Amino acid sequence: MRSDRPLQGVIVLEFCQYLSGPLAGLRLADLGARVIKIERPDGGDAGRKLAIKDLWIDDNSLLFHTINRNKESFTADLKKKEDLELVKKLIRKADVMTHNFRPGIMTKIGLDYNLVKEINPSIIYGEISGYGKEGPWKDKPGQDLLIQSLSGLAFTTGNAGSNPVPFGLAIADMICGNHLAQGILAALYRRQKTNIGALIEVSLMESLLDFQFELLTTYYNGGGQPKRSRVNNGHSLLSAPYGIYKTADGYIALAMMPVTVLRNVIQCSSLDRFEDQDAFIKRDEIKSIIEECFTGHTTGYWMEKFIEKDIWAMPVMNWKELINHDAYKKLRMEQGIERAGEKILTTTRCPIRFDDEILLSAKCAPSLGEHTGVISKEILEYQGV
Amino acid sequence: MRSDRPLQGVIVLEFCQYLSGPLAGLRLADLGARVIKIERPDGGDAGRKLAIKDLWIDDNSLLFHTINRNKESFTADLKKKEDLELVKKLIRKADVMTHNFRPGIMTKIGLDYNLVKEINPSIIYGEISGYGKEGPWKDKPGQDLLIQSLSGLAFTTGNAGSNPVPFGLAIADMICGNHLAQGILAALYRRQKTNIGALIEVSLMESLLDFQFELLTTYYNGGGQPKRSRVNNGHSLLSAPYGIYKTADGYIALAMMPVTVLRNVIQCSSLDRFEDQDAFIKRDEIKSIIEECFTGHTTGYWMEKFIEKDIWAMPVMNWKELINHDAYKKLRMEQGIERAGEKILTTTRCPIRFDDEILLSAKCAPSLGEHTGVISKEILEYQGV
Repeated sequence: MRSDRPLQGVIVLEFCQYLSGPLAGLRLADLGARVIKIERPDGGDAGRKLAIKDLWIDDNSLLFHTINRNKESFTADLKKKEDLELVKKLIRKADVMTHNFRPGIMTKIGLDYNLVKEINPSIIYGEISGYGKEGPWKDKPGQDLLIQSLSGLAFTTGNAGSNPVPFGLAIADMICGNHLAQGILAALYRRQKTNIGALIEVSLMESLLDFQFELLTTYYNGGGQPKRSRVNNGHSLLSAPYGIYKTADGYIALAMMPVTVLRNVIQCSSLDRFEDQDAFIKRDEIKSIIEECFTGHTTGYWMEKFIEKDIWAMPVMNWKELINHDAYKKLRMEQGIERAGEKILTTTRCPIRFDDEILLSAKCAPSLGEHTGVISKEILEYQGV
Repeated sequence: MRSDRPLQGVIVLEFCQYLSGPLAGLRLADLGARVIKIERPDGGDAGRKLAIKDLWIDDNSLLFHTINRNKESFTADLKKKEDLELVKKLIRKADVMTHNFRPGIMTKIGLDYNLVKEINPSIIYGEISGYGKEGPWKDKPGQDLLIQSLSGLAFTTGNAGSNPVPFGLAIADMICGNHLAQGILAALYRRQKTNIGALIEVSLMESLLDFQFELLTTYYNGGGQPKRSRVNNGHSLLSAPYGIYKTADGYIALAMMPVTVLRNVIQCSSLDRFEDQDAFIKRDEIKSIIEECFTGHTTGYWMEKFIEKDIWAMPVMNWKELINHDAYKKLRMEQGIERAGEKILTTTRCPIRFDDEILLSAKCAPSLGEHTGVISKEILEYQGV
């Protein structure tokens, strides 16, 4: 890099569990910050024990390792006075702290923003909740699928006639973690100019509402509820052929294009009776015809025609196909994560390129309390815990 | 606010069209930056004419208004030498510039990063591509559905046995625009400390790979391809009952919970033969039983049981239900956008709360070239264009 990583020297204390908060911390860490997880001595971040497909690295889940690489761990029992005092000393030295506890918990502990800014007035304090601090949902579980379902998002995906379809990953956590990182970064910039700290609040619900800003604005202004197509729905507001189609040996995605152009390329005479202006109102009818047509040939057969005519179409790939593709390899999205010089897992890297370089960080997730001693000495100038 | 908006005083030049780049600009604008769209005199941002459901405000689409509120517009024909000179003067005064042209276009125009940093060495230059600057896909159309399909994402959603299901909105654009904003913010912080500019590159593809970081890491480390459930798929890696279920009058989402707990609450004896450890391997079987059970009663009936037992379940709401709910109203996510003091549309606000305040900006999207004269005078100290 032409210089240090952008957040070099920034100290972040992460009082977070599971995905949303730790994702914000991961992003800040990859951008150069020193991120210290503050964890309960008995078990720490509950994400350590959340395994999927029973995949573990040492005694922590692969999932925990994925989200918490490139961080340190400091254990403290916030209910014990002496531990809390130690954490307060840490807070004095920190630039940022984040938490994703339910509303009220940090006040009970004595570490809400109003209390913390007395200790460190220029701190940037980031918090994630499920639904904000007020209102009838404030104490409801801030869980991804539930918030997808409440926010209307599930009604955008899948075919009309089918159940609403949830997104197959933790979208609210992902988007909200990104929003928290953004707010913190903006506040760091302001603080560098003015020495003023900030309180940054985001919630899973508000993040999913923002995520739907195009669709919601359409609704607010008289566009009505989303109407998913009955056939191969791609986007409730877009015309045929937009969607994914089965071929003889796989699937093809078709983006926006005039129906009249498509019918010439695929030589489908059943489409002759449609004009381009029918593409929205007769969407299901047109899509059904295209669907039938596509099953007659392979993805390769169709893609050859589409590439020749510069049509916006692509094969639908699974991860195996993707990862073996030269275009994927060229991106160098993978990185090895190491413990004591040995590679222990492979994961993705930070998606942001800085000064023509990718940001890699091989440092693995910390074991619980791994850095308590070092941090006590280094940051607190405090000998022995 | 306790102080200025965090990006007060920052000037951003936006050479962007459609969604991804303009979304980053919208976020920076709401955080306080002055965002100036640099547009072709003949038509400008092609998004101006991209209408959905034929919804227009003046002669620009509602969609354009949604994404470009709170910005200014400066017209310049970058193929004309005198206009290019004017834009270069603007660049000298700018803090940030962004573009989402295909790779090579900015070099042809004479405004790629290497050329621009000669004019303004401390500029932060952000660019979005579809697939990065290298590799076999670099000149392919950077379109959302196509990138969902190539990235494996479509295979995470919908039921096994169905076609892969695309997310019903422009997820790659949304996530990538957020990543660009993040990179720019980190660079602004670094520049404030060091006076060093930066090149920030993101791509729709890399953003969707990052978005799948949990799932891809599982795959990299031996977890295999995602296996969607045949019945009410919610997340390919999670056990029954995770998913959305039809009731007598609507739908309910069930998050993680032990099957043995659920069966007691819903009093479903057909589930008696399953233990909690069956919840992943017998996922489809268990979900089919739950599915049948749920249709017998209304959402209200089930929710009453779930609330009583503190079960992680929520009704699935559409936008109408959401927007009429007190919890939604409490969030104050909507804001009116005005032209000349008159409200012309309603949209969502920035999802990030700063210092206990929501960030509202009633300023509407600019008409094409609306600020060319003012900006020429103010920023260029240049009289008459």
